[in-house]
Amino acid sequence: MIPGPFLLYIGDKRNPLDIKTSRGLATFRREDCIGELREADNPVTLGLPRMDVAEAAAKGARALVLGVATSGGRMDEAMIPHILAALDAGLHVVSGLHQHLSSDRRIRERADELGRQLIDVRAAPEGLKVGTGARRPGRRILTVGTDCAVGKMYTALHLADALRARGIPARFRATGQTGVLIAGEGVVVDSVIADFISGAAEALSPARDSNVWDVIEGQGSLFNPSFAGVSLGLLHGAQPQALVMCHDPARPHMRGLPHMPVPGIAACIEENLRSARLTSPDVECVGVSINGSGLEPAAAEDLRAAISAETGLPCVDPVVTGMGSVVDRLVERFPASAS
Amino acid sequence: MIPGPFLLYIGDKRNPLDIKTSRGLATFRREDCIGELREADNPVTLGLPRMDVAEAAAKGARALVLGVATSGGRMDEAMIPHILAALDAGLHVVSGLHQHLSSDRRIRERADELGRQLIDVRAAPEGLKVGTGARRPGRRILTVGTDCAVGKMYTALHLADALRARGIPARFRATGQTGVLIAGEGVVVDSVIADFISGAAEALSPARDSNVWDVIEGQGSLFNPSFAGVSLGLLHGAQPQALVMCHDPARPHMRGLPHMPVPGIAACIEENLRSARLTSPDVECVGVSINGSGLEPAAAEDLRAAISAETGLPCVDPVVTGMGSVVDRLVERFPASAS
Repeated sequence: MIPGPFLLYIGDKRNPLDIKTSRGLATFRREDCIGELREADNPVTLGLPRMDVAEAAAKGARALVLGVATSGGRMDEAMIPHILAALDAGLHVVSGLHQHLSSDRRIRERADELGRQLIDVRAAPEGLKVGTGARRPGRRILTVGTDCAVGKMYTALHLADALRARGIPARFRATGQTGVLIAGEGVVVDSVIADFISGAAEALSPARDSNVWDVIEGQGSLFNPSFAGVSLGLLHGAQPQALVMCHDPARPHMRGLPHMPVPGIAACIEENLRSARLTSPDVECVGVSINGSGLEPAAAEDLRAAISAETGLPCVDPVVTGMGSVVDRLVERFPASAS
Repeated sequence: MIPGPFLLYIGDKRNPLDIKTSRGLATFRREDCIGELREADNPVTLGLPRMDVAEAAAKGARALVLGVATSGGRMDEAMIPHILAALDAGLHVVSGLHQHLSSDRRIRERADELGRQLIDVRAAPEGLKVGTGARRPGRRILTVGTDCAVGKMYTALHLADALRARGIPARFRATGQTGVLIAGEGVVVDSVIADFISGAAEALSPARDSNVWDVIEGQGSLFNPSFAGVSLGLLHGAQPQALVMCHDPARPHMRGLPHMPVPGIAACIEENLRSARLTSPDVECVGVSINGSGLEPAAAEDLRAAISAETGLPCVDPVVTGMGSVVDRLVERFPASAS
């Protein structure tokens, strides 16, 4: 569906949060990433070789990935020459932006002329239905968060891996542009028509009669006023039996909103459980996942212990501790039925 | 923007809730409604003369309005001949459906050929931004509800009228297809890309330095799992100082969802206040608005008294009692500043 290997676009983006889609691919599909395209004076790197489109094509890249965030999700004018050069060099172009690649006439005409693919992972699928909230069988766990970009996708990917490593069947269900690029499928729920948010989540994790866990990537936060509607619709549509709360302790305020404080973890868990009960009355939280990369190791360990003491839940950092204690809790609370 | 007078389409729709857009126009813009187009064996009526497109055109109609709800918001095949006949008869066509008129080739080509307008009130405006939740000046009151289609638009329209009748400046802000048709402007928030729900609400009721009340039409319900994401994004983006809770006591369960009970009014008020405080910390509820048309008058009066006693708030039925006691409460709680 999405042709790799990839050349990852960084361009002039200097905020690490603005390249999270490129970073996600570089982390979870490293073997498919040939290099990174960035301005010479930009120190931000994914640790891949810096190269231009011609070099990437010569090394086997098949697509340039615009894995960056921009204001309003629109293409920067600075991207356009790189996109056109990539098409000229024989690459397809993949975008995680709201603005579709084909909406720019220069890009559309060049791709048409050269027979390249323009892939917008944020294009909403056809045929979505309005959600119903009807109870459905199957095992579903959703990652939720105190804010955007606090590790909900990382946690879900690591959790699905950790479950499988224990012999518990699980599949990652992507709901954001990075997740869809990594998994090669999914629905970018913030890009569907608002009426269909919960319906998209229901379609993504349909009824299933088995012990397989659908590990669903969460979006936004009930406490982020830019995106809480998406978070709530996803929470209702996912109808999860279990939640994992994700948090970045280095976040000084809600992302991009200096007037908005980050909520407390316990309060955020309570609010998510309260909202989730509308479609999943027995939902419970089975753990907290911290991105401790901004802290000293000892401070991060103390923080995890404090959160665990406050919430009575296991508290992990996927890349430091692994997801083991959350898996323990999930297995204890939701034993596999004999089938 | 939307050319009247109108011929209102009912077709074969027999559920009164399915013709609420046509009914809204027939109620609030009666003088612009020439007739209704319905199948001969359909007893559902708006009390307008039944006529075909040719007769409507002869009587001065300028547009056929598809003011009906359909499964998934798509055009029924049964509508198509009527739409084509309307174009042939000289009418423009206005639709409140999700599916755009021009997506049907037959309609698009006929309209192009004849030079008629195809107006989709659900088409999202260009240039929407992500909401910020930043505090802004201005007076805003939002109607919220226990479910969809319980009188939020009626209540907002009657409230704006009642405020103006007291000499208090107010403007109705439409957020649904019926409201936009009635007002001739607004944003259909359930039709925007999910990322932009709260941003659309912020754009609809921007900062203003005056005593004018923006009376904002609510959508859905925090307790309706199909649409709660839209309701929450609108609540955050509207940033209202005041709420009015709307309720239909005849509703046996959430609309179209027999597995979902209707929430209690007090619990629904509390949940809306809790959620609204994220962007409007001092928000309060100033009244309850009941659609008592399904009850005997004495029973409706008893119910209003009981709700008022339970909530400590005025309880009105816009078409029976008027909005006076809610206006009293609003004026008491939010006196006009000397300006």
